[in-house]
Amino acid sequence: MVNLTRGNPPTDVFPTEELIAAGTANLREDGKRVLQYLHAPGYPPLLELLAQKHGVETDQVILGNSSLELLMFTTMTEVKPGGTIFLESPSYDRANTLAKRSGANVVSVPVETDGVDLNKFEEALKKNRPDLFYIIADFQNPMGITTSAAKREQLAKWAREYDFLIIEDSPYRELRYSGTPVPQINSFAPEHVLTTSSFSKTLAPGLRMGYAYGPKEVIKRLTRYEVDTYIGTVTPTQGMVYEYLKTGRFEQNLEKLRNYYRPRLEAMMEVVEQNVPTAVFPRPEGGYFIGVTLPEGNSMEELLPKAAAAGYKLTDGRGYYLDPADGERFLRLPFPAMTPEEIRRDVPGLFELIKK
Amino acid sequence: MVNLTRGNPPTDVFPTEELIAAGTANLREDGKRVLQYLHAPGYPPLLELLAQKHGVETDQVILGNSSLELLMFTTMTEVKPGGTIFLESPSYDRANTLAKRSGANVVSVPVETDGVDLNKFEEALKKNRPDLFYIIADFQNPMGITTSAAKREQLAKWAREYDFLIIEDSPYRELRYSGTPVPQINSFAPEHVLTTSSFSKTLAPGLRMGYAYGPKEVIKRLTRYEVDTYIGTVTPTQGMVYEYLKTGRFEQNLEKLRNYYRPRLEAMMEVVEQNVPTAVFPRPEGGYFIGVTLPEGNSMEELLPKAAAAGYKLTDGRGYYLDPADGERFLRLPFPAMTPEEIRRDVPGLFELIKK
Repeated sequence: MVNLTRGNPPTDVFPTEELIAAGTANLREDGKRVLQYLHAPGYPPLLELLAQKHGVETDQVILGNSSLELLMFTTMTEVKPGGTIFLESPSYDRANTLAKRSGANVVSVPVETDGVDLNKFEEALKKNRPDLFYIIADFQNPMGITTSAAKREQLAKWAREYDFLIIEDSPYRELRYSGTPVPQINSFAPEHVLTTSSFSKTLAPGLRMGYAYGPKEVIKRLTRYEVDTYIGTVTPTQGMVYEYLKTGRFEQNLEKLRNYYRPRLEAMMEVVEQNVPTAVFPRPEGGYFIGVTLPEGNSMEELLPKAAAAGYKLTDGRGYYLDPADGERFLRLPFPAMTPEEIRRDVPGLFELIKK
Repeated sequence: MVNLTRGNPPTDVFPTEELIAAGTANLREDGKRVLQYLHAPGYPPLLELLAQKHGVETDQVILGNSSLELLMFTTMTEVKPGGTIFLESPSYDRANTLAKRSGANVVSVPVETDGVDLNKFEEALKKNRPDLFYIIADFQNPMGITTSAAKREQLAKWAREYDFLIIEDSPYRELRYSGTPVPQINSFAPEHVLTTSSFSKTLAPGLRMGYAYGPKEVIKRLTRYEVDTYIGTVTPTQGMVYEYLKTGRFEQNLEKLRNYYRPRLEAMMEVVEQNVPTAVFPRPEGGYFIGVTLPEGNSMEELLPKAAAAGYKLTDGRGYYLDPADGERFLRLPFPAMTPEEIRRDVPGLFELIKK
């Protein structure tokens, strides 16, 4: 069975022994604090470290039990009753689910290879001012695209003009394998951007450790929401990550991951190009995914059972679109969990099932 | 400053070294699983162990990042739009907050020393069938009372007849210092009771590890809600607790805690009896709190600033009541975090501020 479903990292990249050492050191040193009730927004030394890293003040940072959870909380605290949430189309399927679950009016705006279509965004904006716009600007899930600096600046300008909050979800930003980083959206409108990130792709997803930073008032409301939901986030894992970051090994680990994933991305692009030359897909410079639009005549409806029969587990491309019909030809290919050899050996067979 | 606010355990009871050993063993043995994405309902070996402990099937158990969070999720999955939640009056202040935040119609029913007033409960029931009834049947927070077996049976009978779900929150159940355990409500109506518990009072609150067990359909809906919220709960701490439970030290630790807290409860009761003979309070047989109703003429409004000036930090008793006015004379006294000597030395001064 070739698994091309979720964005799981390969398990051999987890720095298990280093995390054990870090967790042990932290519990010995600060166990009375991390094992006691500790109210949101999270473990203070880690909040401070993250604030330094991102050049903000400590009371502009909050930890969550995953960044997805922080997105959910933000839909609860920042969207007015009857309010609207904008998303990219396609977007992270779980973000679509949360936006819909929040009860808000949900609108999606199509992306191009350099980010969201600005004409369509402006059109949507004039029809319906959103409270939130959720965007994955770097190596987007599921497309792999990166929003250009010019588009980021324009989106930030609109956020100020129309007074909405941009959630800039950045779990992949540090996993750039080529090219130059684009300034974060928050640099253009710090008062209107909440940036979220997590350690799922850079350390280990089982930690379920996400964080957000941005305007103090938003952090304050999220903190209140966390206190009312569960008093505080899980702390011993925060102590573990704090100690790990302090050793300075995080940067080394990132470099290791980049060198590890780069040839996997290259192999996956090569396989798609060679096997389905008529497919449309961006050339990602980082992240976890390539979003492939299959040639006309293909459909998820038909492909999914055929792929399953041939031993390929796929995620249904329709889930990334608010209107599932828009995703009939959409195939997300995650690449980090397969070696370049496995990709070259196993993925071409999938494309034999595809109409070219 | 004498702190009589929240229900924090004393930090010297945390089995820190044993938790370090357990977490290390689990990460070495099963790190590839606990560090990877692991979907709700939680770490399978721990779910199995909890199922065995409580005599249910594994798919009747779910883990949460605290039991409070599981209460929140239950208000989202089990209460119909426009539905009603019943609570005891007084109840855990954070449960009141969550019930109100859920948007449900919230009704509270007064407790007596042996549990909720059944006549008033029936009256409320006939006016307004609830979707949920939240009850802390053992050593209630904030009163310290335990619901009698007869009342539990009647509540279970009503849950079946009127088809509502009882959330039986049991974080203190294993902390009984005297007397005999009363059968759990779930034993009278397993199909209508979701029992929640946590390791906050029996191991360490910073773990934020709660769990619930009950009807499979409820567990299924909660699991879906967890997956959509954050994919899965924080896992390395679950691995740690699993390994700790496997060593068999949990029971020893409970026995240690009971012997530790028993004289503290006795000292607190003695101090109240001797200093405010006209105060009304139950004689708890376990748990964390004694709920004291002060003599007429006292009020939180007046007491809180006077107590603060004299060096006593109190929780506002009004928070435990849906109608804050009902809590004007209500004082919750937590006792586990002070030694018997500290209680006898420091608490009487508080009562000098009280009208007798």
